[in-house]
Amino acid sequence: MNDSVLEISYALDTFYFLVCTAFVMFMACGFAMLESGLVRSKNTVEILTKNALLYSVACIVYLIIGYNIMYPAAPLSGFIPGLELFLGSDNTLADIAAGEDAPYYSSMADFIFQAVFAAATMSIVSGAIAERMKLWPFLLFAVFMVAVIYPVSGYWKWGGGFLDVLGFQDFAGSVVVHMAGASAALAAVLLVGARKGRYSANGQSRAIPGANLPIAMLGMFILWMGWFGFNGGSMLKIASLDDANAVARIFVNTNMAAAAGMVTAALLYRLKFGKVDMTMVINGALAGLVSITAEPLMPTPELAVLIGAVGGVVVVFSVLALDRVKIDDPVGAISVHGSAGIWGIVAVVLSNPDATLATQLVGTLVIFAWMFGASFLVLWCIKKSVGLRVSEEEELEGMDLHECGMSAYPEFVAFQGQASGTPHATPRDAVGDTVPLSKPALR
Amino acid sequence: MNDSVLEISYALDTFYFLVCTAFVMFMACGFAMLESGLVRSKNTVEILTKNALLYSVACIVYLIIGYNIMYPAAPLSGFIPGLELFLGSDNTLADIAAGEDAPYYSSMADFIFQAVFAAATMSIVSGAIAERMKLWPFLLFAVFMVAVIYPVSGYWKWGGGFLDVLGFQDFAGSVVVHMAGASAALAAVLLVGARKGRYSANGQSRAIPGANLPIAMLGMFILWMGWFGFNGGSMLKIASLDDANAVARIFVNTNMAAAAGMVTAALLYRLKFGKVDMTMVINGALAGLVSITAEPLMPTPELAVLIGAVGGVVVVFSVLALDRVKIDDPVGAISVHGSAGIWGIVAVVLSNPDATLATQLVGTLVIFAWMFGASFLVLWCIKKSVGLRVSEEEELEGMDLHECGMSAYPEFVAFQGQASGTPHATPRDAVGDTVPLSKPALR
Amino acid sequence: MNDSVLEISYALDTFYFLVCTAFVMFMACGFAMLESGLVRSKNTVEILTKNALLYSVACIVYLIIGYNIMYPAAPLSGFIPGLELFLGSDNTLADIAAGEDAPYYSSMADFIFQAVFAAATMSIVSGAIAERMKLWPFLLFAVFMVAVIYPVSGYWKWGGGFLDVLGFQDFAGSVVVHMAGASAALAAVLLVGARKGRYSANGQSRAIPGANLPIAMLGMFILWMGWFGFNGGSMLKIASLDDANAVARIFVNTNMAAAAGMVTAALLYRLKFGKVDMTMVINGALAGLVSITAEPLMPTPELAVLIGAVGGVVVVFSVLALDRVKIDDPVGAISVHGSAGIWGIVAVVLSNPDATLATQLVGTLVIFAWMFGASFLVLWCIKKSVGLRVSEEEELEGMDLHECGMSAYPEFVAFQGQASGTPHATPRDAVGDTVPLSKPALR
Repeated sequence: MNDSVLEISYALDTFYFLVCTAFVMFMACGFAMLESGLVRSKNTVEILTKNALLYSVACIVYLIIGYNIMYPAAPLSGFIPGLELFLGSDNTLADIAAGEDAPYYSSMADFIFQAVFAAATMSIVSGAIAERMKLWPFLLFAVFMVAVIYPVSGYWKWGGGFLDVLGFQDFAGSVVVHMAGASAALAAVLLVGARKGRYSANGQSRAIPGANLPIAMLGMFILWMGWFGFNGGSMLKIASLDDANAVARIFVNTNMAAAAGMVTAALLYRLKFGKVDMTMVINGALAGLVSITAEPLMPTPELAVLIGAVGGVVVVFSVLALDRVKIDDPVGAISVHGSAGIWGIVAVVLSNPDATLATQLVGTLVIFAWMFGASFLVLWCIKKSVGLRVSEEEELEGMDLHECGMSAYPEFVAFQGQASGTPHATPRDAVGDTVPLSKPALR
Repeated sequence: MNDSVLEISYALDTFYFLVCTAFVMFMACGFAMLESGLVRSKNTVEILTKNALLYSVACIVYLIIGYNIMYPAAPLSGFIPGLELFLGSDNTLADIAAGEDAPYYSSMADFIFQAVFAAATMSIVSGAIAERMKLWPFLLFAVFMVAVIYPVSGYWKWGGGFLDVLGFQDFAGSVVVHMAGASAALAAVLLVGARKGRYSANGQSRAIPGANLPIAMLGMFILWMGWFGFNGGSMLKIASLDDANAVARIFVNTNMAAAAGMVTAALLYRLKFGKVDMTMVINGALAGLVSITAEPLMPTPELAVLIGAVGGVVVVFSVLALDRVKIDDPVGAISVHGSAGIWGIVAVVLSNPDATLATQLVGTLVIFAWMFGASFLVLWCIKKSVGLRVSEEEELEGMDLHECGMSAYPEFVAFQGQASGTPHATPRDAVGDTVPLSKPALR
Repeated sequence: MNDSVLEISYALDTFYFLVCTAFVMFMACGFAMLESGLVRSKNTVEILTKNALLYSVACIVYLIIGYNIMYPAAPLSGFIPGLELFLGSDNTLADIAAGEDAPYYSSMADFIFQAVFAAATMSIVSGAIAERMKLWPFLLFAVFMVAVIYPVSGYWKWGGGFLDVLGFQDFAGSVVVHMAGASAALAAVLLVGARKGRYSANGQSRAIPGANLPIAMLGMFILWMGWFGFNGGSMLKIASLDDANAVARIFVNTNMAAAAGMVTAALLYRLKFGKVDMTMVINGALAGLVSITAEPLMPTPELAVLIGAVGGVVVVFSVLALDRVKIDDPVGAISVHGSAGIWGIVAVVLSNPDATLATQLVGTLVIFAWMFGASFLVLWCIKKSVGLRVSEEEELEGMDLHECGMSAYPEFVAFQGQASGTPHATPRDAVGDTVPLSKPALR
């Protein structure tokens, strides 16, 4: 290729990467909507704030530390990455003309694509600990998670570490991202405990319905669209016939697996319980997406339907099982990202001849052990120092009041812990619905 | 062109197609938000579930059957397509170097772009029958619709069938998609009947206000953005000067028609009734979009303003007229997609010299007859077997309770059919807003 | 380059521009969601309608007049642009083969990208005057603003006018768009006055909480994603190594500044007041985005973090200061777009050697004087003729009732100015939640 063609190819690959980045970035919004729709109104502002801040913290921390740990220029060993800070300079014309191993897109684009992946991993955790974990300790955990914990196991696979050498296959991160996030979430849920009232004294579980289901469904659709960028972008390039065909196939398979997961989860739930739980429809689709993420390229679209369909079944039984053992996960994050992630990594052997069941399971186990162990350790330290869980009073009255000093729906429901059966608006005065506040009135 | 340039061109066209696909896929979210905002709170979960599941069902059915009917490799005649199942393999380097008729993008990308169109057609129906048609019979109809009914008439035009041979012009589907969906919707509404209370005993119609208007407006904006992919993608290619200019012009015209439709609908409604009905603002924009869809390329931007503006007028009168004849369409889908679609197909003659009024009308009539007739037949069979409409009790108490067993806004409004004037939350117990349920408590 | 390569390059640049356009167009949705979440339920339909209509009006007016004023083919002088109407024809193959100054993308794509910028400028105003300014006079102002006021100062910088000649640097519009919009907003707020009850008789300010905070957070995320198109698209081209690297860096810096602005605003607020105000979290992110908009290319990502972080501090103090001087801005638009915009234009000198503090301040002052002065004049004329502000009764009862005749959440809160403490649904009759209306019942 001559230089002008090389440059256009480089530009196309970079642009494709940036579009995928924007889609994955928007998944932060998807998580925020999904989670805020599935919690009670008294904890809505807090979970929105948590989701927004975790995204921002993750991006900053990943820029300063995480990215260079995950993709080290000079790793110390297959287990231990090197450590540099901040980003290097971008590619030059000489770099991209250098032959076989030449970079085909901007390294800045690579950074930002990886950064939004790191943020997504952290978003998985926030749903599982909703409605009872304090805001600032959560963000403190996010710093450790995105600076070190996630990048280390990420390095083992995607940075060229020992799992990659071993032949562990995980295309876009069923395990490296999703089960990793779910493992940290599990550690957090075990340390922080179930929500008050989730399980009654005699051991029965009680549903805690979400306050705003259209918002939750919006979150699902945003995540689904974002997944085109998540899986499609993980091809890393598009500017040739084979790559373009590959990205197109990834789009098809990603979409089909999600569709199939939704349908089987809905049907199974309908058959078992007689109605269609909308949250299970959402979880089925997300489970289908997680399932295909480990290998969205090699399956035929029909096999993708099958893989997604099984994912939809897995998530229903996983949610039921976790409920039985009293692991309280308000949005089903551990089942969606963890259980379906494990199914996804196993399903790679159905289409990818380079994958063996043994290495897939070893890789999964290693990453689970690391993510769960390291997260548990960090969270345990935070618990013993500043604490993880809000007080009983705060939980009863709602986190919005205590962490944020405001209500998500002041005109629709009671505020300040009024636990009576009748919602009512904040007190209004004669001139027009204003509220005298002790804190400064900013808007 | 040499091979590397050919490949980049192919990659760019494929990527453009995939981005457009993602935008159109997101229209499923737009429909879900629009419809869930415009129904009552007691039917919100059901319409969300219906929209999500119809998208998934449509994608799967279109993969297995619909796509090959619509774009048959070996059609039997101009009226009857062939039948193959599943997808073939993607293009090779030899294919794209084959000269004039060489493919310029991945055939997988083509499939997924067409699949989201099929889903959009089905989404149009769901709004019209909201609040009274059963979930599962609707999905059963979706199977027939996306497997056969829509693909057959789609084949007649876009698959190279007899309407295409005849010279019928419909660039992105004012009739092939939108009026087609509206025709099926009309059949469904006639068979399922109006909502209880929509028309009083003495024949007066009563408004049934939607529960959550910001969500409806969100839906409009998502649909609008998605339409850039819908119309822009229908150019099918972008990788040359002429094609790039064409896609840019399509973006401009699509946007201008929507803007004009909104403004005229708002102004007309304001002049007639003294206020601005926000749902009519939404419908005006969507009508503008539908109007320009038949020919978004040839008009000047100024003509696009005019076409959209007339669309905005058409939709207002159409909504008023359908109301007068007691066709109950909760979201105005038949007017937006049907009436404005007909206007759009006629307006093609204003700018496209290849179109004649006669062929445009013949094509419209043929597609209406087929879509309405075939849909009516299938729906009639479903009605006679499993039934289309929920029971009176279910309709009164809300479909969410009976179909999904959950409430969209449990803390904002009464649940379980409490028709009293005062909304109230689900009963809360002392420990924290939990609800004992008979069904398993999953979150 | 040979012609086929030239064409692909042109197509890629055009496509990139159109994708960015779609993202920026969607910012109209972001503004609509943000604003409708932060106002009271009784003014929600009106602000949604206002946002939708202003976008449409802006696009039409910019097509007919504004674009040619802002980018005149034959300007009269550096101060006074020329005047043509409508768009010209698009580029030809000869044009793009013409050498150095050849166009590298469709001029239709340029128009639509600029049009959505004009609409964004107008969206800034709508938030500041929410809950008390009449709908139609606002839209009348939008016509003047987008036809002339904004295009004239836009011409001074981006159309090649005297500020451009002077060396004033504003890459994507911290001042040309954002502070310009805020200046018009300030003029409007001064003329229209504060909302009833915002400041008590003894001079204390009172918070007026927004009715639907998840929707506001959704707006923030949409704006953030849109900003990738806003800043990234302002590079105007991508189809070479340098341009691709530049766009990638702009994505990174845009994202990092937003993240940093959010974190500092949250931390600062937490330190000052003990809680995290979610609206300040939103404003911090948006302030970070506005701050980096003047120069998203030259800073390192670390400097972008710093610029955004200061933006987050600026917005907190600006909101507090405006409150003290009783400038009532329900969504903080003047602080976010104005104060942070000024900081952003100053911060250009930190990384761009072509910028001097003097020219940056002169340019800012000139644009402020023009935008504020011209807007004030036009708004003053509207005030004296048809009036700007709704009546006291309308304000008390809500604009939705009087301007739109409908309620945003009819089942969640009281309608028609019932100012009692208990919300209740619209009256329901026995058959199913219908409402007899005096106006025609359309759905």
